[in-house]
Amino acid sequence: MSGAYGSTFATWRAGAEAPWQAYTHHAFVEGLRDGSLPRSAFLAYLVQDYVFLRHFSRAWALALMKSDTLEEMRTAATTVDALVNHEMGLHVETCARHGISEAELFAAEELAPNLAYTRYVLDAGVSGDFLDLMAALAPCVLGYGEIGARLAAEKAPDTPYGEWIATYADAEYQGVCEAVGQMIDGAIAHRLGDAPEASPRWSRLQAHFTRATQLEVDFWQMGLDAA
Amino acid sequence: MSGAYGSTFATWRAGAEAPWQAYTHHAFVEGLRDGSLPRSAFLAYLVQDYVFLRHFSRAWALALMKSDTLEEMRTAATTVDALVNHEMGLHVETCARHGISEAELFAAEELAPNLAYTRYVLDAGVSGDFLDLMAALAPCVLGYGEIGARLAAEKAPDTPYGEWIATYADAEYQGVCEAVGQMIDGAIAHRLGDAPEASPRWSRLQAHFTRATQLEVDFWQMGLDAA
Amino acid sequence: MSGAYGSTFATWRAGAEAPWQAYTHHAFVEGLRDGSLPRSAFLAYLVQDYVFLRHFSRAWALALMKSDTLEEMRTAATTVDALVNHEMGLHVETCARHGISEAELFAAEELAPNLAYTRYVLDAGVSGDFLDLMAALAPCVLGYGEIGARLAAEKAPDTPYGEWIATYADAEYQGVCEAVGQMIDGAIAHRLGDAPEASPRWSRLQAHFTRATQLEVDFWQMGLDAA
Amino acid sequence: MSGAYGSTFATWRAGAEAPWQAYTHHAFVEGLRDGSLPRSAFLAYLVQDYVFLRHFSRAWALALMKSDTLEEMRTAATTVDALVNHEMGLHVETCARHGISEAELFAAEELAPNLAYTRYVLDAGVSGDFLDLMAALAPCVLGYGEIGARLAAEKAPDTPYGEWIATYADAEYQGVCEAVGQMIDGAIAHRLGDAPEASPRWSRLQAHFTRATQLEVDFWQMGLDAA
Repeated sequence: MSGAYGSTFATWRAGAEAPWQAYTHHAFVEGLRDGSLPRSAFLAYLVQDYVFLRHFSRAWALALMKSDTLEEMRTAATTVDALVNHEMGLHVETCARHGISEAELFAAEELAPNLAYTRYVLDAGVSGDFLDLMAALAPCVLGYGEIGARLAAEKAPDTPYGEWIATYADAEYQGVCEAVGQMIDGAIAHRLGDAPEASPRWSRLQAHFTRATQLEVDFWQMGLDAA
Repeated sequence: MSGAYGSTFATWRAGAEAPWQAYTHHAFVEGLRDGSLPRSAFLAYLVQDYVFLRHFSRAWALALMKSDTLEEMRTAATTVDALVNHEMGLHVETCARHGISEAELFAAEELAPNLAYTRYVLDAGVSGDFLDLMAALAPCVLGYGEIGARLAAEKAPDTPYGEWIATYADAEYQGVCEAVGQMIDGAIAHRLGDAPEASPRWSRLQAHFTRATQLEVDFWQMGLDAA
Repeated sequence: MSGAYGSTFATWRAGAEAPWQAYTHHAFVEGLRDGSLPRSAFLAYLVQDYVFLRHFSRAWALALMKSDTLEEMRTAATTVDALVNHEMGLHVETCARHGISEAELFAAEELAPNLAYTRYVLDAGVSGDFLDLMAALAPCVLGYGEIGARLAAEKAPDTPYGEWIATYADAEYQGVCEAVGQMIDGAIAHRLGDAPEASPRWSRLQAHFTRATQLEVDFWQMGLDAA
Repeated sequence: MSGAYGSTFATWRAGAEAPWQAYTHHAFVEGLRDGSLPRSAFLAYLVQDYVFLRHFSRAWALALMKSDTLEEMRTAATTVDALVNHEMGLHVETCARHGISEAELFAAEELAPNLAYTRYVLDAGVSGDFLDLMAALAPCVLGYGEIGARLAAEKAPDTPYGEWIATYADAEYQGVCEAVGQMIDGAIAHRLGDAPEASPRWSRLQAHFTRATQLEVDFWQMGLDAA
């Protein structure tokens, strides 16, 4: 299904095979699938993910600052709004049901693997251009889409994490992934032409994608360790 | 009416009396009011204002990057989305009716007073913090609200610019101004406490507000000169 | 002589022929050459140029933030240090001889053409990558080298501006130009390969170079107008 | 001895007592002092520290971009130059003696605790102002000064790490610490006045200092773990 996320993503994903497998099939993910993930690990993850979304929305705001075309601007503006005014709200609701308030979420201590990941992504954009930022943002956006779609098909009927899985498996989020993937393909063509892998910049873009994927692995692990 | 935009704005506005008058009562503005503004000046302005909105939305994206509270984040995210996915579209529609396409708008040459203004605002944020950026953003957002409200009351019945006036006079835009003004008051209190004018930073914030107001004067003049 | 500044500069320069001529042969420049430039224009320029150097050094600091290789880092670090700890000092000395203190220089009102230029250069870097910034920085660094070298050969024996001319004509500054030009050639090859003009990015880089050149024309004109 | 580094540092240090102790008396530091640190740990640290210096010099470049006074600009410009053109060279020489080339250093894989630290510092500056950046930069600059001065007094006569200790204990580096500490005091007074701890911003500045101190602890630990 991830073919729907565009050709750039497919190439980057193939270029990070081992870390991509470690990320998308992490024990945390498998615990969501079969329901064996401890509730405490899930909640610790949710709290950190709320802090993550705060900085991830800042990274998409940076993407808007570095956009070159109308399509790039619109995708970034829509994503910023969706993250801040929608997805952060979903976390607030879920956490509220488990007795964690929004003020607690906003004030939660940011653990080191969380901090490392978002600041790396932000600096990929600050130090480079729109493409560097996209390569560092892609593993989160598109990896969650891939994980959601797979878990929706493979999940245990009684996993208590069906709602989380549905969030990323449903048509709306899959549509976001397809739009972002298509926009990235356009951004690549706009800047590197029709043979982007021949560009001297390709190895650096791949390095950003691979590093961000490794930081996703650390993020899941942080959730398990915090349980 | 501008009292509704908060106490910080009221103080900054009082601290920039002469340029604020020059901005809000510029010959271009009076020409909108009484209908004497040449159509060619209005169209030249609209084209430049489209380019302006592109960079102004980048400045609000920077505001999101530099936000410290949920309210700041939400105001910035909502504004970014409104500018890119709504207000830029309004300009496209208006220009389309006068035979100017969106591609032409996006590719329009940015005149020097336009460039000077937006890049100054962006750099106020890059070089400073959220407050520096707000002081530089405020004259545009809130000045247009003040101009729109006044012109709605004073306009000639037959001015052809009634639609432009209504855009900034109507309840929706006035609500944006009130929300932004309130958010700025909160941002000031959050960082400078309850006696912000006693802070050593106040003079620099006032300087940003005053400079941005002067750059608004240059922007109207650019519209007249381009006719 | 400008061939010594590298092949990228030669191409950009050829791509901005009319504005480059307007910049390097501006009436202000010719007044330096033949000595006819009013002293008041020169001093007004010097004061603005001091403010310019302050923000230009910020742009070179941004270049260091966006460097990818050791050579880029070293060139940027050396330039930052030279601008802040050496060239700004030269302006201070010259101005002091004419009764203008350093505190006055640091507090001087920045005129609009000055503001427009430096903020444009800074935003070229913020919105793009190292190459976008280099394309916007090059006209100042290398144009002054070209002007200095030409005026040293063509100047009237009795022009009172011999010291200014010598600053940019002498071996030290020419060496800086050669090093920067060579570094830019390397930065281009590092990111765009050996056929950089075939890259989709080339037109944008040329646009930055051309725009910055036009902003140099406005800067000289500001000096004349301020007399 | 650290009283010489200014009153702001003294207050921040007192506000981070436990992590400051964990940082300045880490097992890695004690191993440098008594000579028990494995050579492999030291070399692993040196390689990571070279990568660290690369990004730390970028953070000082950002400080120059966000400077408000001549003193701030000069301190930042001098530090950038010292880090890139001097201190990185010292690491190159030391590593060369142990068979590690500069190209290897520049290409070394950046470990996660290293990445987390520098990107956090950079983002403190991007998201905030000059003071936020200084609060995040201070633990490294001034902590190394404090560690160097203490170890010079307490070191075992036969520790093989005398040269490292001397680098940070000698008058030149201590002078840097005093100048930076004094500049920070000035920067605080310039923006927050003479009762800075009463400012609503103080808690956030303290949080940056404390977090950066914790990231220093992780950095030493990374050196031990890599042995």
